[in-house]
Amino acid sequence: MSKTLKIALIGLGARAVGLLKFVIYNQKDIEVVAVCDTYADRIDSIKALAKKKRRVEPRGYLDYKEIIEKEKDLDAVIIATSWEVHTDIAIAFMNAKIPVGVEVGGAYDINECYRLIECYEKTKTPYMMLENCCYGNLELATLRMVREGIFGEVVHCKGGYKHDLRDEIAFGKTNRHYRLAEYQKRNAEIYPTHEIGPISKILNITFGNKFDSISSCSSKALGLKEYIATRKDKFPEIKYLENATFTQGDIVNTVIKCHNGETILLELDTTLPRHYSRGFEVRGTRAAVFEDLGKSYFDTNEKMRVKTRSLKYAQRKYAHDIWKWYKKVGVRGGHGGMDYLVLNAFFEAVRKGDGHMPIDIYESVTWMAVTALSDLSIKSGGKPQEFPDFTNGKWKDRKQQGSGFYFLEK
Amino acid sequence: MSKTLKIALIGLGARAVGLLKFVIYNQKDIEVVAVCDTYADRIDSIKALAKKKRRVEPRGYLDYKEIIEKEKDLDAVIIATSWEVHTDIAIAFMNAKIPVGVEVGGAYDINECYRLIECYEKTKTPYMMLENCCYGNLELATLRMVREGIFGEVVHCKGGYKHDLRDEIAFGKTNRHYRLAEYQKRNAEIYPTHEIGPISKILNITFGNKFDSISSCSSKALGLKEYIATRKDKFPEIKYLENATFTQGDIVNTVIKCHNGETILLELDTTLPRHYSRGFEVRGTRAAVFEDLGKSYFDTNEKMRVKTRSLKYAQRKYAHDIWKWYKKVGVRGGHGGMDYLVLNAFFEAVRKGDGHMPIDIYESVTWMAVTALSDLSIKSGGKPQEFPDFTNGKWKDRKQQGSGFYFLEK
Repeated sequence: MSKTLKIALIGLGARAVGLLKFVIYNQKDIEVVAVCDTYADRIDSIKALAKKKRRVEPRGYLDYKEIIEKEKDLDAVIIATSWEVHTDIAIAFMNAKIPVGVEVGGAYDINECYRLIECYEKTKTPYMMLENCCYGNLELATLRMVREGIFGEVVHCKGGYKHDLRDEIAFGKTNRHYRLAEYQKRNAEIYPTHEIGPISKILNITFGNKFDSISSCSSKALGLKEYIATRKDKFPEIKYLENATFTQGDIVNTVIKCHNGETILLELDTTLPRHYSRGFEVRGTRAAVFEDLGKSYFDTNEKMRVKTRSLKYAQRKYAHDIWKWYKKVGVRGGHGGMDYLVLNAFFEAVRKGDGHMPIDIYESVTWMAVTALSDLSIKSGGKPQEFPDFTNGKWKDRKQQGSGFYFLEK
Repeated sequence: MSKTLKIALIGLGARAVGLLKFVIYNQKDIEVVAVCDTYADRIDSIKALAKKKRRVEPRGYLDYKEIIEKEKDLDAVIIATSWEVHTDIAIAFMNAKIPVGVEVGGAYDINECYRLIECYEKTKTPYMMLENCCYGNLELATLRMVREGIFGEVVHCKGGYKHDLRDEIAFGKTNRHYRLAEYQKRNAEIYPTHEIGPISKILNITFGNKFDSISSCSSKALGLKEYIATRKDKFPEIKYLENATFTQGDIVNTVIKCHNGETILLELDTTLPRHYSRGFEVRGTRAAVFEDLGKSYFDTNEKMRVKTRSLKYAQRKYAHDIWKWYKKVGVRGGHGGMDYLVLNAFFEAVRKGDGHMPIDIYESVTWMAVTALSDLSIKSGGKPQEFPDFTNGKWKDRKQQGSGFYFLEK
């Protein structure tokens, strides 16, 4: 039995409830001792959930700073707030030497990224972006294929957040969902990490490779307008938005050029009718994986013959150790099991206590920067932006520090 | 029975053979009176084919200029040469007042585009790019859906030329295929028209809408190198390429921003293992079509319900008149029937003789310009290039001139 970790959870929206219900409250070795939200009723709901799950009732806080003052034996904090306050809260806890796990989200500006790096380099408090898709079955099988040379050399990767969120956004006032405000003031690749996380692991970003430049282009923003126009009579609670302005383009295409010559295409696609997909694709000189199609391709040495296989075949044949183990012990938790894996990756690293994280702050900040830079690129009419090197040159021979079952070896 | 057209065919590679075998030589009302290629044996093969098909033996020429001098009653010329000489040959025939149908291909520089426009505006000789994919079943059904408002407003379109051409390129010396030289000296979106053609029709490009800017980004070029390394022992005829340099990136992503706010993504993907696809996607506020997935989506007015349908459903329900007729009389010719349609679109317009073409020179040149501009963008590190307006302002209220069964009405 591992040491019980005492953790705080900041931000009690739908994400936090999911993490508690499907992962944390099923683990005896994690104790949520403090929770925080600016809405008091959310705290009450979590307390009720704890009771229902027969777990210790957490102390409730309306202000995260009070947690830092009053909770003196925290092992870690998980931040699942709206994107906008991730960094301020993370920095406060890092300064208090409490290891930080932050839910996914992009940066509003590059300064935010530098503030995190500066704080980390001063405090050495571990910081990890809880990017669950790095632990996806497909993503990890593909990572193994890359490491074993099955792709030959990887040349191009592709991913997207393709998720029709029109209801979540339009009903944002009712739902108290922060996305509504985001779509009314921004226009950027605002949700890149589900794709850029796993792709960065594949391309060794910050470990011998880096992003050199990034450019983004946005379509017009008509999806939400049309959604509201066609639903406002049936759902009067969204009628107030009928003349609202939405700034966030329906489709944002982002292209990143890597130092070692690979390209990455990201597609953000959240306000038009479609199916859900992360459109994960990895393309090498000897093989290819296409999530949307459910297909994989393996080259032969014949003049023209490429073997076509199902994606499931590739996932089975090249199953990653983490998933082999996971299927044996039983897949659990939300989002196809990824949430359990990423949280336990964080918890394992916190327990080990050597200061290293399976997704470290240089990687996390690099992924967050995609949002800030895509914003600048769109504002400049699509001009490529130079990608800052947050490692300050260390990317050239940086090796992953730390180790453990959940560490995704370079 | 329509008037028999006497035509010349310039460039007798695989494309010309396909057009003759599967389309032209099955039409009694088209007479190929002259053919031209710099390889004499190709001329002999075509003469043999004519004999086999019991058609008039065409006169053979090694120099197209001789055709202009000697063939005095040509109704039209079809140019199916390597891309590099399309424009010079077209201009020569336009100056001789012979209507020109040119096979697909991109421009090497913007000047090429202006030379065509200048020649057209001086001579008024009709010019049409023979872009067969404009007449594809899916593309035309989608065009009808757009015109009927099924998509609501179209926001984003996507297409690609995703075709593993490694054998064609690597064996280019044996095959006498011009692509080999192209991949050794260029790096651009060198084959955009199969996608940008149908997409331009959908977005009314040059007819009330235009391309404002374009940017391209290319991955490294490793696919052909690896192909040759792994095949050279088995196929000694490609061994001489083992140290060759290939400049054309394996994947080129191009983003075009349109004046009316739509975006277009083009993916060129020809030298890595994969399946064939043109990856056609049209995204509107009310519907979506995804070629690769074989799916279409139709919005409802419910809070969150989008109806998923097969692509075949959409193609059946919104079948274009051209294809309704075509299925009745029997689909024929190459490339799923598109070759017959595009050639007969050209022949019908030539017969009508009012000087108008279903794909006119302003459209053709705009599509060709994608290649030249993507080249400049890649050379500049991905900077967006301003897209020239070849209509000189007429795009604002330009209406399609001419009419007929094959004209794709605005």
